[in-house]
Amino acid sequence: MSVYTASTTAPVNIATLKYWGKRDKSLNLPTNSSISVTLSQDDLRTLTSVATSSSFTEDQLWLNGTPESLTSERTVACLKDLRALRTAVEARDTSLPKFSEWKLHIVSENNFPTAAGLASSAAGFSALVKAIAKLYELPESMSEISKIARKGSGSACRSLFGGYVAWEMGSEVDGSDSKAVEVAPLEHWPSMKAAILVVSADKKDTPSTSGMQTTVATSDLFQHRIKNVVPTRFIEMKETILNKDFAKFAELTMKDSNSFHAVCLDSYPPIKYLNDTSMKVIKLIHTLNAAAGETIAAYTFDAGPNAVIYYLEENEAVVLGLLHELFGGVAGWEKVDKEQLTLLKAFPKEHLDYDITKGVAKIILTRVGPGPQDTEQCLINKETGLPN
Amino acid sequence: MSVYTASTTAPVNIATLKYWGKRDKSLNLPTNSSISVTLSQDDLRTLTSVATSSSFTEDQLWLNGTPESLTSERTVACLKDLRALRTAVEARDTSLPKFSEWKLHIVSENNFPTAAGLASSAAGFSALVKAIAKLYELPESMSEISKIARKGSGSACRSLFGGYVAWEMGSEVDGSDSKAVEVAPLEHWPSMKAAILVVSADKKDTPSTSGMQTTVATSDLFQHRIKNVVPTRFIEMKETILNKDFAKFAELTMKDSNSFHAVCLDSYPPIKYLNDTSMKVIKLIHTLNAAAGETIAAYTFDAGPNAVIYYLEENEAVVLGLLHELFGGVAGWEKVDKEQLTLLKAFPKEHLDYDITKGVAKIILTRVGPGPQDTEQCLINKETGLPN
Repeated sequence: MSVYTASTTAPVNIATLKYWGKRDKSLNLPTNSSISVTLSQDDLRTLTSVATSSSFTEDQLWLNGTPESLTSERTVACLKDLRALRTAVEARDTSLPKFSEWKLHIVSENNFPTAAGLASSAAGFSALVKAIAKLYELPESMSEISKIARKGSGSACRSLFGGYVAWEMGSEVDGSDSKAVEVAPLEHWPSMKAAILVVSADKKDTPSTSGMQTTVATSDLFQHRIKNVVPTRFIEMKETILNKDFAKFAELTMKDSNSFHAVCLDSYPPIKYLNDTSMKVIKLIHTLNAAAGETIAAYTFDAGPNAVIYYLEENEAVVLGLLHELFGGVAGWEKVDKEQLTLLKAFPKEHLDYDITKGVAKIILTRVGPGPQDTEQCLINKETGLPN
Repeated sequence: MSVYTASTTAPVNIATLKYWGKRDKSLNLPTNSSISVTLSQDDLRTLTSVATSSSFTEDQLWLNGTPESLTSERTVACLKDLRALRTAVEARDTSLPKFSEWKLHIVSENNFPTAAGLASSAAGFSALVKAIAKLYELPESMSEISKIARKGSGSACRSLFGGYVAWEMGSEVDGSDSKAVEVAPLEHWPSMKAAILVVSADKKDTPSTSGMQTTVATSDLFQHRIKNVVPTRFIEMKETILNKDFAKFAELTMKDSNSFHAVCLDSYPPIKYLNDTSMKVIKLIHTLNAAAGETIAAYTFDAGPNAVIYYLEENEAVVLGLLHELFGGVAGWEKVDKEQLTLLKAFPKEHLDYDITKGVAKIILTRVGPGPQDTEQCLINKETGLPN
C-alpha cells in the first residue's frame, strides 16, 4: 500500500501577555489579545508525524507511545478544517491523490514530561496541524493555519511562529480574524533567555478551560482587565519587543502575570495557581532587580505554580548566579559546562531566603527559539502506517 | 493634686467589605466605604484609662506596660481635635476645669497579643479617643467622635459602634463627612459568630499603610474596584444585614476579601498577605458550604494570613465540627465545654486535606459584640496619675 507521511516539530510558547477568558468556547475565541515568546525546541518540543493512505480504516492517534482517542470535539474540528482546505487543493488539481477522503494516523512525542504543566497542548496542537498542513501541501499562510490550531488549543496558534508572537483576538463571530501573527522573528532579539523553575505542587490545579469560564462568569475585575488594561498593554508590549527594551518588556510581563492571577483570585470560588514558592520567586526577582539597580529579569506564571524567568544573555552570569545559589541542587544544570558555572556571579547571601530551595524540583534553561521545523525523523513506519 | 480619670474598653472589628486605599493619607480618608462586624470584647478588647491634671508636665502613654511615644502625627492629630472640642465645652461653661490646657496620661492594655495581627490598632485608637471624650464630657455623637478616631487609624472609626457598622467614605476634602455609622445594632442580628484562625506566618507582612499606597499608585484593577465594584456591594451588604440574609452576606464577604487580595496581587511589586494555609482555608469553606448545600460560613482575610470565619449560631455544630476535626489540637477550645464538644457534627473525612492542620497556631472563638463600654476598672492610680 502507499503510505504518505509528513513530520514536523513544534515549540512551546510562554505568554508574556496572558490569554485568559474565552468569548466563544467551541471556537476558542479569546476575550483579549495575547503575546508570547516561542521557546527553543532543543529543550521543549513536540515531534509529530502524520500519515494517510487509502487503506487506513480509521483516524488514529498515538501520544507518547499510547493510543489516544481522536474523538474530542477540538481535534475533530481541526481535522475537519484541514480536510476542507485539502479538498480545495484537490479541486484545483484533480491529479492529486484524494487525501481529504482518507483516514489519518498521527503519532506524537514530547521531549519533556507532559505532566510538568509546561504548555504541552500548545506544542501538541500546533505540531498536529502543521504536520497535516504539510502532508496536504496546503498553500495557506501560517496565520491562516494558526486559526485551525487555535480551535485545538487557544495558545497553540502562537506556537506556529518562532520568536515573538501575537495572537490577535479579532472581532468576527466565526473567528476568521482571530489568529497568530509574528511580532518579531527570533533573529530580531535572539538574546532572550528563559529559566523555567518547575515548582513542586501537591495538588492538580484547576483546568484552564473551566478556570477561564469561572473567571468570565464571576470576576468583577476581569471585565476591566480585558477592556481597559490589556488593550493598552498589548500595544506597549509589542513596542518594547520592536525596541528591544528589556526593562519595559519585563515590567509589562510581570504586571500582566500578576493581573491574570489577580482575576483568578477575584473569581468565585477563587482560583489559585500560585503557591508560597511561586510567591517567593516573585519576591526573589524583585530583590534581584533592586540589587541590580535595573530590571534584568521578569517572572511569569501560567495556570500553575511553575515560574518562567525571562532575562537577556548579557545578564546571564548575574541571573543564573542567583538561581544556581538557590537551586543548584536540582536537575537541569547539566547543560551548563563547568567553566561557565565558575563565571556565575555570587549574589549577597544575606538577602536570600533559602526556604525557597525546597519548593523547586527542576530547572529548565532555555531561550527564544524558532517556529515549527521540518524534520526527516519520522515516527511512522512507511510500510505499515503504524508507529515505529 | 487632683487627678481626673476616665476608662473605657473598645472592641476589635473585622471588615466584611474591606477598606484598602487612602485618598488622603494624613486625614486617613479612604478611597471606598467599608462595612464591619464588631467582635465581642470578652475575647478581644483594649482597656484604656486616661487621666489629666494641672500638675502633669507632659502627655504620656503606656501601652501594655511599656512607655511609648506620643509624638506620632496620628496620635497628635487625635489629641488636638479632642482638646479643641473640650475648649468649646469649657467656653460654654467657664466653671469647668481647663482640661484642654492640661497634659494627659494614657494607659492602655489589650487582652490579646498585639503581634497576632488582629487589628489591634482599631481597638487601640477607638479606646483612646472614646476615653478622652468621656473624660472631657464631650457632647458630640459617636459618629462625630469616630472622625477623630479615624485620623488615628482608619478602621478605628468603626470600633466606636457595636454590631454592624459602616464607614461612609464621604466626599469632603477635610474629611468632615468620612465617619462611622451604625448599620444595625448587635441586638438586630445577635447570632453572628466568628472563629479566627491564627495562621503561622514566617515573615512580617507588608504594613497596610505602605501596601495601600502601592496599590493606589500601581494597580490597574484597583480603580475599577473602588469605582464600580465596592459602591454596589456596599449597598447590597447593608441590605443583607438588615434582612439577616446570611447566605448573601457571606457571599459578598468572601467576594470582597478575594477582590481586596486580588488588587494587592495586581500591585507592583505585588503584595501578598494570603499564604498556602490561607488559600486552603478558602477552599475548606467552599467545601463546607458545598457539603451543606447552602452558604453557612464565610471567610475573610485582612492584611495578613489569619482567617476570620463568620457563621450563625444555628450552624455552630456543623461549622465547629469541621474546625475541631482539623484544628482541635490548638489553643482556643478551652471555652467550649465538653458536653458542647460532643454535640459537634462530624464532617466526612474523605473530603478533608489534613495538611492544613499544621498551618494554624490558635483559634479564637468569638461573636458579634457591643461597642465601647464604660468600666470602673482604672489602670491609672488616682493619687499619682501613673499606671497602677
